[in-house]
Amino acid sequence: MDYVYGPGRNHLFVPGPVNIPEPVIRAMNRNNEDYRSPAIPAMTKTLLEDVKMIFKTTTGTPFMIPTTGTGAWESALTNTLSPGDRIVSFLIGQFSLLWIDQQQRLNFNVDVVESEWGQGANLEILAEKLASDYTHTIKAICIVHNETATGVTNNLATVRKLLDHYRHPALLLVDGVSSICALDFRMDEWGVDVALTGSQKALSLPTGIGLVCASPKALEASKSAKSVRVFFDWNDYLKFYKLGTFWPYTPSVQLLYGLRAALDLIFEEGLDNVITRHSRLGKATRLAVEAWGLKNCTQKEEWYSDTVTAVLVPPYIDSTEIVRRAWKRYNLSLGLGLNKVAGKVFRIGHLGNLNELQLLGCLAGVEMILKDVGYPVKLGSGVAAACAYLQNTIPMIPSRI
Amino acid sequence: MDYVYGPGRNHLFVPGPVNIPEPVIRAMNRNNEDYRSPAIPAMTKTLLEDVKMIFKTTTGTPFMIPTTGTGAWESALTNTLSPGDRIVSFLIGQFSLLWIDQQQRLNFNVDVVESEWGQGANLEILAEKLASDYTHTIKAICIVHNETATGVTNNLATVRKLLDHYRHPALLLVDGVSSICALDFRMDEWGVDVALTGSQKALSLPTGIGLVCASPKALEASKSAKSVRVFFDWNDYLKFYKLGTFWPYTPSVQLLYGLRAALDLIFEEGLDNVITRHSRLGKATRLAVEAWGLKNCTQKEEWYSDTVTAVLVPPYIDSTEIVRRAWKRYNLSLGLGLNKVAGKVFRIGHLGNLNELQLLGCLAGVEMILKDVGYPVKLGSGVAAACAYLQNTIPMIPSRI
Amino acid sequence: MDYVYGPGRNHLFVPGPVNIPEPVIRAMNRNNEDYRSPAIPAMTKTLLEDVKMIFKTTTGTPFMIPTTGTGAWESALTNTLSPGDRIVSFLIGQFSLLWIDQQQRLNFNVDVVESEWGQGANLEILAEKLASDYTHTIKAICIVHNETATGVTNNLATVRKLLDHYRHPALLLVDGVSSICALDFRMDEWGVDVALTGSQKALSLPTGIGLVCASPKALEASKSAKSVRVFFDWNDYLKFYKLGTFWPYTPSVQLLYGLRAALDLIFEEGLDNVITRHSRLGKATRLAVEAWGLKNCTQKEEWYSDTVTAVLVPPYIDSTEIVRRAWKRYNLSLGLGLNKVAGKVFRIGHLGNLNELQLLGCLAGVEMILKDVGYPVKLGSGVAAACAYLQNTIPMIPSRI
Amino acid sequence: MDYVYGPGRNHLFVPGPVNIPEPVIRAMNRNNEDYRSPAIPAMTKTLLEDVKMIFKTTTGTPFMIPTTGTGAWESALTNTLSPGDRIVSFLIGQFSLLWIDQQQRLNFNVDVVESEWGQGANLEILAEKLASDYTHTIKAICIVHNETATGVTNNLATVRKLLDHYRHPALLLVDGVSSICALDFRMDEWGVDVALTGSQKALSLPTGIGLVCASPKALEASKSAKSVRVFFDWNDYLKFYKLGTFWPYTPSVQLLYGLRAALDLIFEEGLDNVITRHSRLGKATRLAVEAWGLKNCTQKEEWYSDTVTAVLVPPYIDSTEIVRRAWKRYNLSLGLGLNKVAGKVFRIGHLGNLNELQLLGCLAGVEMILKDVGYPVKLGSGVAAACAYLQNTIPMIPSRI
Repeated sequence: MDYVYGPGRNHLFVPGPVNIPEPVIRAMNRNNEDYRSPAIPAMTKTLLEDVKMIFKTTTGTPFMIPTTGTGAWESALTNTLSPGDRIVSFLIGQFSLLWIDQQQRLNFNVDVVESEWGQGANLEILAEKLASDYTHTIKAICIVHNETATGVTNNLATVRKLLDHYRHPALLLVDGVSSICALDFRMDEWGVDVALTGSQKALSLPTGIGLVCASPKALEASKSAKSVRVFFDWNDYLKFYKLGTFWPYTPSVQLLYGLRAALDLIFEEGLDNVITRHSRLGKATRLAVEAWGLKNCTQKEEWYSDTVTAVLVPPYIDSTEIVRRAWKRYNLSLGLGLNKVAGKVFRIGHLGNLNELQLLGCLAGVEMILKDVGYPVKLGSGVAAACAYLQNTIPMIPSRI
Repeated sequence: MDYVYGPGRNHLFVPGPVNIPEPVIRAMNRNNEDYRSPAIPAMTKTLLEDVKMIFKTTTGTPFMIPTTGTGAWESALTNTLSPGDRIVSFLIGQFSLLWIDQQQRLNFNVDVVESEWGQGANLEILAEKLASDYTHTIKAICIVHNETATGVTNNLATVRKLLDHYRHPALLLVDGVSSICALDFRMDEWGVDVALTGSQKALSLPTGIGLVCASPKALEASKSAKSVRVFFDWNDYLKFYKLGTFWPYTPSVQLLYGLRAALDLIFEEGLDNVITRHSRLGKATRLAVEAWGLKNCTQKEEWYSDTVTAVLVPPYIDSTEIVRRAWKRYNLSLGLGLNKVAGKVFRIGHLGNLNELQLLGCLAGVEMILKDVGYPVKLGSGVAAACAYLQNTIPMIPSRI
Repeated sequence: MDYVYGPGRNHLFVPGPVNIPEPVIRAMNRNNEDYRSPAIPAMTKTLLEDVKMIFKTTTGTPFMIPTTGTGAWESALTNTLSPGDRIVSFLIGQFSLLWIDQQQRLNFNVDVVESEWGQGANLEILAEKLASDYTHTIKAICIVHNETATGVTNNLATVRKLLDHYRHPALLLVDGVSSICALDFRMDEWGVDVALTGSQKALSLPTGIGLVCASPKALEASKSAKSVRVFFDWNDYLKFYKLGTFWPYTPSVQLLYGLRAALDLIFEEGLDNVITRHSRLGKATRLAVEAWGLKNCTQKEEWYSDTVTAVLVPPYIDSTEIVRRAWKRYNLSLGLGLNKVAGKVFRIGHLGNLNELQLLGCLAGVEMILKDVGYPVKLGSGVAAACAYLQNTIPMIPSRI
Repeated sequence: MDYVYGPGRNHLFVPGPVNIPEPVIRAMNRNNEDYRSPAIPAMTKTLLEDVKMIFKTTTGTPFMIPTTGTGAWESALTNTLSPGDRIVSFLIGQFSLLWIDQQQRLNFNVDVVESEWGQGANLEILAEKLASDYTHTIKAICIVHNETATGVTNNLATVRKLLDHYRHPALLLVDGVSSICALDFRMDEWGVDVALTGSQKALSLPTGIGLVCASPKALEASKSAKSVRVFFDWNDYLKFYKLGTFWPYTPSVQLLYGLRAALDLIFEEGLDNVITRHSRLGKATRLAVEAWGLKNCTQKEEWYSDTVTAVLVPPYIDSTEIVRRAWKRYNLSLGLGLNKVAGKVFRIGHLGNLNELQLLGCLAGVEMILKDVGYPVKLGSGVAAACAYLQNTIPMIPSRI
């Protein structure tokens, strides 16, 4: 209960909600509007078209639901599945755990594939399950693209390959909350059936829009899915899409204008450049962690996440104290270790509208905090390692005029 | 598809979303924040306390769900009822219709009591149903306090009296979307079990918070309610209330700061003064309608709504054209006639952070539009009638310092 | 000392500062920036080009000085004149009075031509003075285009005709504070040598930019003008114009972005449409005043101002009380009577980013206030008269897309 | 002409305009207001009282003039001096040079005491001049507290001691543009007669208010000062101070609300804590420069500035290229070398609402840029040196609740 105000800007390095760009804050700085006027549908139409680009889909149908990531999960599941359906779901950290909890409470028959926290989804077990599922009892594979709690990125291309290899018709549902718009994500190419994210993540908006994108196969599945749903029902949206008014209930016009501005910025930078920037920031962070002599919670390089790095601290340090001091002394917001890794890791989010010098300020702060809590870090070492890499890779900012 | 920009301010007179006060727009003009820091729970705690005041409850438990009114409905129903439960629901306009549609899709056994659009809930039929329900098969009464489509306010005190009279234990679920914070609403006194509203209505915020308040009896009911729910589950909130972190998933910090500012303004004006102001604006509007020689869609004075007036137009006029011209020529946003009253009524919303001169500008505009579409209105007549009443009733604005 | 907060929007009808359009408020909602980066000069260049259009000049040189209208006056005078220079200046109200006071304190030899307040500049006397000034002792004519205190618009075309008729080389300096961007003003056509306005008037920005535009003849005069000046010296600007960095000292980047947005809105509406809109609002206001049975402070139609109407009240009423009540009871800001007309007039400003319904709300408010203070107005009469005119003249808002 | 947009926040490290705190941006995000209503004078009164605290005066009279620092200079000079008056003025860098230029153009008899750029004011020469000025021909000493071009802070206490020692009645006029609210400044204790600053410096507002504070002796001098002035005349303000309406011409209400918020933040942090923070940031910057093996333009420790550090680059490097790359590659705004030190120094501003991690991000950026331009810096070295110092000195942020 220590509500504080410190001088200067807060350094926001939780893995979401992330920093909102000034042009987006400006775009949302407005009065309400009648969403039934011709203006809002006209804008909505452009948004729906452009949102497809961040999912890298041309065939998908996007829904911009006034909800959070948790609601987007529920929308993905209830529109495509029926109670009792068998689904394979990977438990690799707190957010996959929460999704599985939701799946179970929605009465699906969840076949949980658990990995140690810090590892990726066990795709060998998936292969086995698919191989032996002659009768196609598995209706869906549910996988978190990037587990925000441990900084683990799963290999979706491989999941698709396995499904194809076994000619398995299961739907592929992907939580892209901390990946889409930041990591390489290809809905069409990877045959993802439902992908979803939240506005407060790499899109760099406030919380409030759950973006869900459905493949034609997912839309088809929704026709027979028996899970009870109203607020999250795609069908209500589809009805209003046809009418050209787009909204079954009141959207936040502020968020729509914000989304318009956010997409404009992303397309101006170039989505692929955005992804490259995240890869650069991720690598720089990992080099710093290595220089500090600390371990990444992520156990193998193949799973390294470019949007969040979970850093393991030595047993004699409580990572919660790191996060507390970061906030109380340095106006720096870091991510806590959650559940199984509580006290053991702290997390640096490096996603969204962020640049290198912001990250370097954060890394310098972390060094001082490590020293504060008794870890024998060499001050400047992480920053030096990050700079050495960044100095060779940061591109010039292109001219606008 | 006529996205327009006209000089001067838009005159927003749809019955929600409504005008946001400048101090609230300012309060929301901010970057994201870590909602797990001590600051957000500290603020959330004050919000939960103060939100109870707008519901006029001391015993209720409020939930501020990142959703719309539709989601708030779903939260109210799924947390208190089980599939197959018999509920009595009143169909008196488009919004009660939509709620009933939701109730049916959520698999409740909905006993629909229909009235002509423009009339209030038929409480005589309710009395009959309660009188004959010896075995208490009715689990809940669902009623819209103020039907936004027709401008009809139902008498909740009478509903409570009937329930008490027949000693009927049914839950009383109230949609207060276009009433709470604007009309006289007394959760505790009227024994309302679940009341709900949306942030974009009388609270004068953007869309994005569904405010739901549950009585102790409703909380008790939630323990055995078997409707499937995850995102809307009160229990997840209650768990985090106990922990003192308050949020099961990411809230919009912008909306929380906005709600803080909105409540501060309401309490500064005084909630009862806010309600009196709405009553003044409602009456002024009705006097104008009468002066124009037009009929109120609301058939009896006892149902007159102080937040929205639905105006019937003569058969030779299409009310949709009135709304279209209002927007295209006068930068005035009026409410359309919906469903059964499409083309027959247009609606003037007079709720939220609004004052008399704003309303008078709108009324003058409506007069010109009526003339535009061929109705023989006497220009100035409605404004004169409204002014004659207002001039005697508007209070002085109290000093702040 | 009664700092108040009332519900709803403040109705701002002082003749400046005026309402800022939402897109302009948004554009200014930003952090500081390095004004020496390439970005600010790039934008400044477009501003200087576009500002010329609102002065209707192609040959003038504009200066955007971080100051108020008073500073803009000083800039106009000190850059073109030397102490002791004879200038003819018209005293017709409080603002021309203040300018004359400045002229005298700057040590010019001011030949004051006074008119009764409510009348325009006496151009017959000007003619006489010009006719008899064989030796061209008159170095400049200083005239307020629109006297904000009395709502009087002077005829600049006639001034030019007289100068031309007598082949008099005097400079023509025009205070366009409450005219430019609202009234018909033609710098080149009328041979105006220095024209000036302030950002908080018809441009609808906050106070802070004094816009001054100099003809080639004025620039030439500045080379020999001996008035002491540094902050207001055009030459410092011209030096930096040549360098392409544009700013001799730090500008407000917020105001520059605001000006960019304001000009964009004006050009989108069309400058001539903006002027027509002001003419419509001015006429509507005068019709209302007439319907109330009150007199315009402006004594002849030829001087009627389309940006401000000064309304004479009967002797038994104190106009200050009208302004006080407007603010305290109706959240309406009207202009006071100043100096000679204090207590005798109140002023309705109708300039800047304003539309008809906003004005009608104000007029309805004035009617109620008149009643409050004991004037036997017929409620609705002014609004009716204004509506009757407006209903036939307001154009449709053009589509943007 | 390379107007660019890069991802993430701009890192604003010019020595003004500086970063505006979010609460201040919010406070200014508003429509215009009638500045003649009771609200604005009520607020102005608190501002005038509180502004005295940042000058550390109880006897001074502050003026908040709608102008820039250049205008504030002019106000200080013209209100206290007459043409021909002898003044002693110290030339130590670009801003003292510009002030001297202004003094000369205002027709004072300027006795310029020049130092090498990088040195402070030569107070020995001042002593000599005072010692020999038996007839008190010197009317004023004009001194820049902190020369922003070279990062040199002059010792005002010594200036006062000399004046006292020689019992010299000369006025002491101080440019505190880059010092007040950031460096230790004591108007009353040091017998400063006029002190001034600009809103866009340590106060962390947009450009637009020149704050000038006059001692009783300066006010007395203004009664006989013969310099021509109108816009900058203190007397016009004093007249309106007496009336209690405070404003001789239109202020920017946005800036007034911003100033209110800025002062509130400064007082919440504590002015002395603000000054300590600047001292911390200044020292950290100098430690980094030293670690890079570069020289401070400031030649002696006694003159080190805690608000700006001018860094000398080796002769084979063009400092302009450093500033260009900072902006084009790192979204970092550094200060150019001006005039005599153009190409030779770049400047890091560390004033205003800024914290340590922001500075460290900047320092890391500078290291990479130095490498970019061929300087053999050891990456991380400056950050390490700064962190080593900061880690021991940053205080905890105090709780608000």
